[in-house]
Amino acid sequence: MVGGGPGSFIGGIHRLGAQIAGIDLVAGVFSGNRDKSLEAARGYGIAPDRCYPTAEALFAAESARADGIDMVAIATPNHLHLPVALQAIAAGVDIISDKPATATLAEVLLLRDALAKGDSRYALTFTYSAYPMVREARARIAAGEIGAVRKTIVTYAQGTLAGPARPDAVRSWRTDPAQAGVGGCVSDIGTHAFNLAEYVTGTPVTAICADLGSQGDERLLDDDCTVLLRFGGGGRGALIASQIAFGERNALSFQVYGDRGALHWHFDQADMLRLVRGGDTSLLTPASAGLLAPTPVPRGIGNGLIAPFAILYRDFAEACAGKPELIDNMLPGIEAGVRSMRFVERAVASSADGAGWVTLDG
Amino acid sequence: MVGGGPGSFIGGIHRLGAQIAGIDLVAGVFSGNRDKSLEAARGYGIAPDRCYPTAEALFAAESARADGIDMVAIATPNHLHLPVALQAIAAGVDIISDKPATATLAEVLLLRDALAKGDSRYALTFTYSAYPMVREARARIAAGEIGAVRKTIVTYAQGTLAGPARPDAVRSWRTDPAQAGVGGCVSDIGTHAFNLAEYVTGTPVTAICADLGSQGDERLLDDDCTVLLRFGGGGRGALIASQIAFGERNALSFQVYGDRGALHWHFDQADMLRLVRGGDTSLLTPASAGLLAPTPVPRGIGNGLIAPFAILYRDFAEACAGKPELIDNMLPGIEAGVRSMRFVERAVASSADGAGWVTLDG
Amino acid sequence: MVGGGPGSFIGGIHRLGAQIAGIDLVAGVFSGNRDKSLEAARGYGIAPDRCYPTAEALFAAESARADGIDMVAIATPNHLHLPVALQAIAAGVDIISDKPATATLAEVLLLRDALAKGDSRYALTFTYSAYPMVREARARIAAGEIGAVRKTIVTYAQGTLAGPARPDAVRSWRTDPAQAGVGGCVSDIGTHAFNLAEYVTGTPVTAICADLGSQGDERLLDDDCTVLLRFGGGGRGALIASQIAFGERNALSFQVYGDRGALHWHFDQADMLRLVRGGDTSLLTPASAGLLAPTPVPRGIGNGLIAPFAILYRDFAEACAGKPELIDNMLPGIEAGVRSMRFVERAVASSADGAGWVTLDG
Amino acid sequence: MVGGGPGSFIGGIHRLGAQIAGIDLVAGVFSGNRDKSLEAARGYGIAPDRCYPTAEALFAAESARADGIDMVAIATPNHLHLPVALQAIAAGVDIISDKPATATLAEVLLLRDALAKGDSRYALTFTYSAYPMVREARARIAAGEIGAVRKTIVTYAQGTLAGPARPDAVRSWRTDPAQAGVGGCVSDIGTHAFNLAEYVTGTPVTAICADLGSQGDERLLDDDCTVLLRFGGGGRGALIASQIAFGERNALSFQVYGDRGALHWHFDQADMLRLVRGGDTSLLTPASAGLLAPTPVPRGIGNGLIAPFAILYRDFAEACAGKPELIDNMLPGIEAGVRSMRFVERAVASSADGAGWVTLDG
Repeated sequence: MVGGGPGSFIGGIHRLGAQIAGIDLVAGVFSGNRDKSLEAARGYGIAPDRCYPTAEALFAAESARADGIDMVAIATPNHLHLPVALQAIAAGVDIISDKPATATLAEVLLLRDALAKGDSRYALTFTYSAYPMVREARARIAAGEIGAVRKTIVTYAQGTLAGPARPDAVRSWRTDPAQAGVGGCVSDIGTHAFNLAEYVTGTPVTAICADLGSQGDERLLDDDCTVLLRFGGGGRGALIASQIAFGERNALSFQVYGDRGALHWHFDQADMLRLVRGGDTSLLTPASAGLLAPTPVPRGIGNGLIAPFAILYRDFAEACAGKPELIDNMLPGIEAGVRSMRFVERAVASSADGAGWVTLDG
Repeated sequence: MVGGGPGSFIGGIHRLGAQIAGIDLVAGVFSGNRDKSLEAARGYGIAPDRCYPTAEALFAAESARADGIDMVAIATPNHLHLPVALQAIAAGVDIISDKPATATLAEVLLLRDALAKGDSRYALTFTYSAYPMVREARARIAAGEIGAVRKTIVTYAQGTLAGPARPDAVRSWRTDPAQAGVGGCVSDIGTHAFNLAEYVTGTPVTAICADLGSQGDERLLDDDCTVLLRFGGGGRGALIASQIAFGERNALSFQVYGDRGALHWHFDQADMLRLVRGGDTSLLTPASAGLLAPTPVPRGIGNGLIAPFAILYRDFAEACAGKPELIDNMLPGIEAGVRSMRFVERAVASSADGAGWVTLDG
Repeated sequence: MVGGGPGSFIGGIHRLGAQIAGIDLVAGVFSGNRDKSLEAARGYGIAPDRCYPTAEALFAAESARADGIDMVAIATPNHLHLPVALQAIAAGVDIISDKPATATLAEVLLLRDALAKGDSRYALTFTYSAYPMVREARARIAAGEIGAVRKTIVTYAQGTLAGPARPDAVRSWRTDPAQAGVGGCVSDIGTHAFNLAEYVTGTPVTAICADLGSQGDERLLDDDCTVLLRFGGGGRGALIASQIAFGERNALSFQVYGDRGALHWHFDQADMLRLVRGGDTSLLTPASAGLLAPTPVPRGIGNGLIAPFAILYRDFAEACAGKPELIDNMLPGIEAGVRSMRFVERAVASSADGAGWVTLDG
Repeated sequence: MVGGGPGSFIGGIHRLGAQIAGIDLVAGVFSGNRDKSLEAARGYGIAPDRCYPTAEALFAAESARADGIDMVAIATPNHLHLPVALQAIAAGVDIISDKPATATLAEVLLLRDALAKGDSRYALTFTYSAYPMVREARARIAAGEIGAVRKTIVTYAQGTLAGPARPDAVRSWRTDPAQAGVGGCVSDIGTHAFNLAEYVTGTPVTAICADLGSQGDERLLDDDCTVLLRFGGGGRGALIASQIAFGERNALSFQVYGDRGALHWHFDQADMLRLVRGGDTSLLTPASAGLLAPTPVPRGIGNGLIAPFAILYRDFAEACAGKPELIDNMLPGIEAGVRSMRFVERAVASSADGAGWVTLDG
């Protein structure tokens, strides 16, 4: 793992998720600060000699070991995603990276090229794609169960930046353009919502019209966005992502309306998918009969982030072990990374330009 | 009453709501078809001699009676709202009208002028403004309980036009531009959502950017709209109104996020208002202690449309009996009518023009 | 109507429900106090000469009129239900009575005899039997959709008697054994729950074991009860009814578990029935496809008490007009009255006796 | 750990929960079958030489090691709880045991004596006591926020034994009296509900009246129970636990009504506690301001069983490290074990005896 130093929340999630999937964390660079990195290594139960000062050192030393790493998890601030990924590709190590893929659209295009030339497998932790009922929704739509999709609403509301601006150690790099890229909320959680919209409907968004706002006086990046969506095939949609939604913790949801049915999901009841078909409404759960996309879930681990990380690691291991077709299909890969970065850059442009429509063409 | 003939749903609601408020329905023109009008009169228990052939005849005859009507309810298709209202004003009769106020913005401006010159009181049945918890939300925001409003989301989803187009007697005039005006869904339910957004926040929307769609091949008016909102004072918002939301009956809701709290309401639990304030979340009901806007509700009548109609009639009667300040304040009046018609026309223009931003200035 | 004087809540509900069903309230004895009775008559729009001093006078005078009443609604305190009903039977007038049928088991047996000898139709306003989704649950169980019923839980929680005892005009007669009978909460709402359990399952309760409590120091009747249930056919159940459930308004619900499925209903979402069948869970509403017991509902009147009263009046009118088989089947009649009174008396005995099991045999 | 062999669900939960609390699983006897035990050890990453053939061998060998175990987790079938615990006490090892404490009341009294004479700390994994909002409910009641508790309803519904009897490897020992003890459902989940009732109210149950049923034809133990409760101080209650509740996964909930307020909790929204106090209703979450019993939760692990196990392990480690007062207070200990076993035996007796009242006196 690169990143995930002391105080990192996501680092521990990576490690537990991987462990449940049977993948051990054995080496890493957990912080730019050597003492912090070693402190994290101790917490993770990693030998000091496999806690490296830099990513270069990590890949060099591990490549030389017979029991060196097969896979690297990238859990750094956004601006380091690209350089670490390029080093991993050079070392032939598979990559599972936190989203967004990189800090900018230009960077992600570079990364796509490098992946095309190298041998590394690549997956992005768009965690919501690993919830069993999200996958079931995707399968139901693909099977035509709700007919042609006409209207898709995705909402992601958090209250993390609500209230007066305040120093917040955990989130600080996210509000700094130099580390996070051009998007704030639109990048941090808007991309989750965007990916979810495309993942579930199985249909690309072709054009957007965005309104991004930043209401705290000292904030350089957006903390709120609403985006009108047009999908290939003629469907319309709305994407609302906000970090000024006072009191919300992680209110992610979608409603997808077709001409023969509808699907509803909310993170607060992540194990429940409401399916409307004709005059019938069903509640689907991972235990329902007749699921189209049954997703085995590690038992007892609930709906927190550990569960989807375990599923992503399990599926990525399977993809690396001979099922590459899972990537960019069941598992978000570099294409999802490119599309989400393009979404961020175009949304920023659309909003800056008075919210005119812009395409998402390549 | 003018309108509300046989098969009319809203006519019966007007009559029962008025009755609960102590106001009797005694005369009317219930249909342009004389036989149907008389049939409706029988159903309402109205003497045949007070069932008139035309609105002109109604106002003329009732003005001549010592026990003539004090108030008229307008429940016709939209394109008749203006002529009937003008006759009522000429007769000095108070008016309670179904929304939208008229079929077009030009018409509503004429109506506003006529009201200014006449003596008639005027209220619009924006029914959602009569739900006790909606009024409480308005009062809480006015009292500053959630601080400055930063983000307002209003959603109104129905499935009435989902699925393949089909003849539908009840709704037919609503999909005919000649009778309904330039807006379809944006007028029929979008105006409810728009009014609710301004009513609850107490803040005018200053600019919008709309995306209206019509997905049934034979449909002349929009059946779906999403509108980006800018409020006076800097808040942002989103309005989603759709009649292609398969399976939805009347899914109206709002979320209002301030910088110190938030308010949540959904029609399915209309008696429940969720108030977030600092680190506390409260569920308010009409029975809660410490309400800022307690609204006495006729007991036992539940959450259907009769309840808000009864409250609107009761308040309008009170307004007419010496509390005119209730109108355009607690009760939506001609100003709400003008604003909602302007919203419809500008939304249509914004969408036709590629969804650019347009102001809602007069 | 007999009863329903000024301040009566249920009187107004009877009148509106009947009106929606096309039945006009034209005569009555609304209070033992003549002035109050006349005041109520004015409120109901009834001519003073059809506002009678006593029930005897009512039946005598109305029987003599060509346009005399066909039906009487009994909305008095419980101890007057029997004498008024007997007079109605003597006059050949059909009866729709508030529950419980009478104040005691002995009385209801007298009433049953009188009905058997007379020509009057008789229905009880066990209102919950008129909710469309309750009727649907009954039909689904009757059709075997959840298999053999093994466990039935019915809960009815109100907070009306929570907190310290206080004078309460509306409820006062209910806490007075002379007017209400031997049961307090067990009679007032426990009978609703009991009727619902038998109505929905279509199976009689054969034995009970009850624990009744009265926790206010000056209270003569129970304010809380829990009852173990045994059903014919071997199913078990629990009935919980409480008026000391602080903060609850009308929390009535059932869960019925069979060996092939289950049904769930809660008054707060009265239009929703959750049906589990094998590995599938469906949400049924009055608009669902394939209902087994579709119940036309007057539109717009919501889920308050007016709706079920309208449905009960409509069905009772239909029963009186030639479909007597609806009574004691779709409509609770005297048999439901006898069973519910037996339930009250036996529950009181079971609890007084240390909560031993008692049968509900006749 | 003793128990938790291959296919064991709870073994993995113990290990992950302990790990999150900073406690490593280093030795064990995972199965009576040596091969299975070694297979489990491999899965847990435990050296083969610390995977022992018997519990005796485990305690003997580990006591002899400088880095031997400090604590043992007992995750065996119920009938082995006592012998393993006695060996642990003999070895001076602290014990965290799955519930029920032992298979019978007689056994748990023996265990209590042994603990009193030994030096081992002892905690039971009544997991629901480790949910933050359950602890908050307990603290609110202790602080008098809902006044004197009058009515407590605890329900625990599962569908594990609904439908026709079928071979079920995972659950088989639970339906075998020789391994599980005299109670089936009443022991397996009824004790969770019973412990929750006493834990939350802080008040002992003094008498019960039970109805236990077994509806599968080949079933030797109860699969369903309803129990009337009397609490010290005069409160009443009902406990419903069923494993024939078709379609339910883990529907555990409580409602506690006092004379000044009420508390509501349901496992499906385990992070939400509804507090009614006077005319106010609040929704409390772990993030609410002003919690009386804030419980730090490991982030990201959701509401599955890992979270409460992590909290129990953390608290038990703290108790063992110098805060013994946590045991039998915040953490259920041997007293909770004795009370729950007494509950099971008396419930069985009460039901066999025609559901008469029995006391829970020692």
